[in-house]
Amino acid sequence: MRKIYLDNASANPLDPEVVKTMMPYLGEAYGNPLSLHDWGNTAREAVEAARVKVAQLIGADAEEIIFTGSGSESNNFALKGLALAEQGKGKHIVISAIEHFSVLNSARTLEKWGFELSLVPVDEYGVIDPEAVSKNIRKDTVLVSVMHANGEVGTIEPIEEISKITRELGIAFHTDAVASAGNIPVDIKKLGVDALSLAGNQFYGPMGIGALWVRKGVRILPLLEGGVQEGGRRAGTENVPAIVGLGKAAEIAASKMPTRIEHLTQLRDRLLNELPQKIEHVVVTGHPQNRLPGNASFCIRFIEGEAMLMLLDSEGIAVSSGSACTSRALKASHVLIAMGLSHEIAQGSLLFSFGMDNNSEDVDHVLEVLPGIVDRLRQMSPLYAKFVKSKGGN
Amino acid sequence: MRKIYLDNASANPLDPEVVKTMMPYLGEAYGNPLSLHDWGNTAREAVEAARVKVAQLIGADAEEIIFTGSGSESNNFALKGLALAEQGKGKHIVISAIEHFSVLNSARTLEKWGFELSLVPVDEYGVIDPEAVSKNIRKDTVLVSVMHANGEVGTIEPIEEISKITRELGIAFHTDAVASAGNIPVDIKKLGVDALSLAGNQFYGPMGIGALWVRKGVRILPLLEGGVQEGGRRAGTENVPAIVGLGKAAEIAASKMPTRIEHLTQLRDRLLNELPQKIEHVVVTGHPQNRLPGNASFCIRFIEGEAMLMLLDSEGIAVSSGSACTSRALKASHVLIAMGLSHEIAQGSLLFSFGMDNNSEDVDHVLEVLPGIVDRLRQMSPLYAKFVKSKGGN
Repeated sequence: MRKIYLDNASANPLDPEVVKTMMPYLGEAYGNPLSLHDWGNTAREAVEAARVKVAQLIGADAEEIIFTGSGSESNNFALKGLALAEQGKGKHIVISAIEHFSVLNSARTLEKWGFELSLVPVDEYGVIDPEAVSKNIRKDTVLVSVMHANGEVGTIEPIEEISKITRELGIAFHTDAVASAGNIPVDIKKLGVDALSLAGNQFYGPMGIGALWVRKGVRILPLLEGGVQEGGRRAGTENVPAIVGLGKAAEIAASKMPTRIEHLTQLRDRLLNELPQKIEHVVVTGHPQNRLPGNASFCIRFIEGEAMLMLLDSEGIAVSSGSACTSRALKASHVLIAMGLSHEIAQGSLLFSFGMDNNSEDVDHVLEVLPGIVDRLRQMSPLYAKFVKSKGGN
Repeated sequence: MRKIYLDNASANPLDPEVVKTMMPYLGEAYGNPLSLHDWGNTAREAVEAARVKVAQLIGADAEEIIFTGSGSESNNFALKGLALAEQGKGKHIVISAIEHFSVLNSARTLEKWGFELSLVPVDEYGVIDPEAVSKNIRKDTVLVSVMHANGEVGTIEPIEEISKITRELGIAFHTDAVASAGNIPVDIKKLGVDALSLAGNQFYGPMGIGALWVRKGVRILPLLEGGVQEGGRRAGTENVPAIVGLGKAAEIAASKMPTRIEHLTQLRDRLLNELPQKIEHVVVTGHPQNRLPGNASFCIRFIEGEAMLMLLDSEGIAVSSGSACTSRALKASHVLIAMGLSHEIAQGSLLFSFGMDNNSEDVDHVLEVLPGIVDRLRQMSPLYAKFVKSKGGN
């Protein structure tokens, strides 16, 4: 059976070049970067070289990069670390309604710790209105966190416009760029933010590695305390092979980005355009143009997303129904609900996320296989029967 | 030049068998364990198989194992997560004076959050007296954390006796077993603890992976929030290759432990016995018998540890001066100070930590090279000159 992986938002294959770069650090070069000897020096130099590459990907200074264990850790660190560092000034934070759960749940915890939280709504395309952010800012606001791009529906947010507001008011602005960094241009100077999260496994780098960029001069309290690693800002022996891999993935992403964007956008646009022609009652979710190159997300009405996943899997096609982080929670996506979709429609969420291993034949195959699956499921769907009846159809 | 690595406490080489087991997950098997398809299933099964192996190493149930990004994260998670979960009952915690900084600094942060902290002293060998723990426990004590073994001086602590006290009083007891797990028998039932931290890079497993075991029924708040990974207790995409590697390292450690202990103890005891015969004014630190198999730690008087490291490094010998996590802070070890050593003596700390790649010739070489280095440094040492003068010597 032909096997097609279309779930690159959940995890993507390591670039073989990245693995090659990591191998020495899984072998002879096993030193601890803090150690004062030859093995330590080798490890430390590798970590610092990777730091430069990650910094270059986002236009930052290397010393502003803090390596973490994941994008989720970066987001927890940013939310809690930035808010707690400034709590003397005020205890109000602003985030969008469609943030990743690592941002949202960190904000909820800050609420338990005495902060007040404002959630900024989004429009039907998942776009956050900078005006709405502005309206939610108060005198005691110490942190704004709005994602750069949403991994579930692909929408890219107007970060530059939001940062004009936060900079004028001197409020720290964090952006979760886990879904975007390495995939589309991310330049911290252009974006105008103060802190930014990214993760390796979103652009053909390793799992278990992320980074938080924090602008020089911005105060942040550590989340993981202990040794003096990462300038005392993130304790724990540095994960040398993964850091080296992240550095290589960042270098490759920077050089290959235009080619990658072109390739992925073509595949995405074909599916976005052609799937609604092949299947009735399909809603494209996310912004029609301002979206991540590899993201084609839909809601297919009258069906449960999970049922489609299972049948697609049995045909060798791997996709997801929204975020992998919540896939086993079987709840309607808070992102789709915030965009104004009903629970009924949101249940039929289906996310195709393309990677560099995909090609046009993969799209052909999905377009060939999915309509039959949808038909089979709709024939068993009481919701669909009710709909057909209401229309007076057969 | 002959190169000898004697700094296995800071980092140790990955077992080639471990790397072999990880490779598929750096290649084709790149799925996210949460994904509901073939790639996801493969990843999830690998993670769950590794969880069983890690659990077996410490005599626990697999579902009680939470994978983390490092031993430091496990310790932060345990201290903050256990204390905050029980703060309704009381806000007092007890730790020993020689804990790793990831425990100590987490406890200091809890102090800032309104907890009170008692530090239990140690004797000259770094041993914690269970009676002293008992005396520090109050009615509002909700957490005791005492390490299983100290990585700097090797001393193994009387955890079983301390747990008798905590169990009787119904107080949660965490032990940092990062230095011991995988190296000496660690059985949670025998130890009688409620939570235990371990890390892969302490027993020939990968960097960037740790685990926290928490006894079923013990409440803990998450440190990293977000997705539903690890039963909602630790968010962030699971680091599949590293988890698989940790599982394999645990399996190998369990089967090879007696051989490893015998080999390392022989090397350690030779150095502990013979170094003080070759060099004057050497203090063996840590317990003479109850110590980690690979740990030979000393203070060499009238010299700075760092100077010895540098000269040993120039001879191809890699050692450390206490904990790698603080090596660049250039402060006297809080462990040695707590054991009653003066700052002057503590400055001359030197830690040899043996691994399975070492042999008796490595000990010979150290015994041959180090006395000359010590002589050279003492000739330049004002402290030594003063000492010699005070003795009326030459």
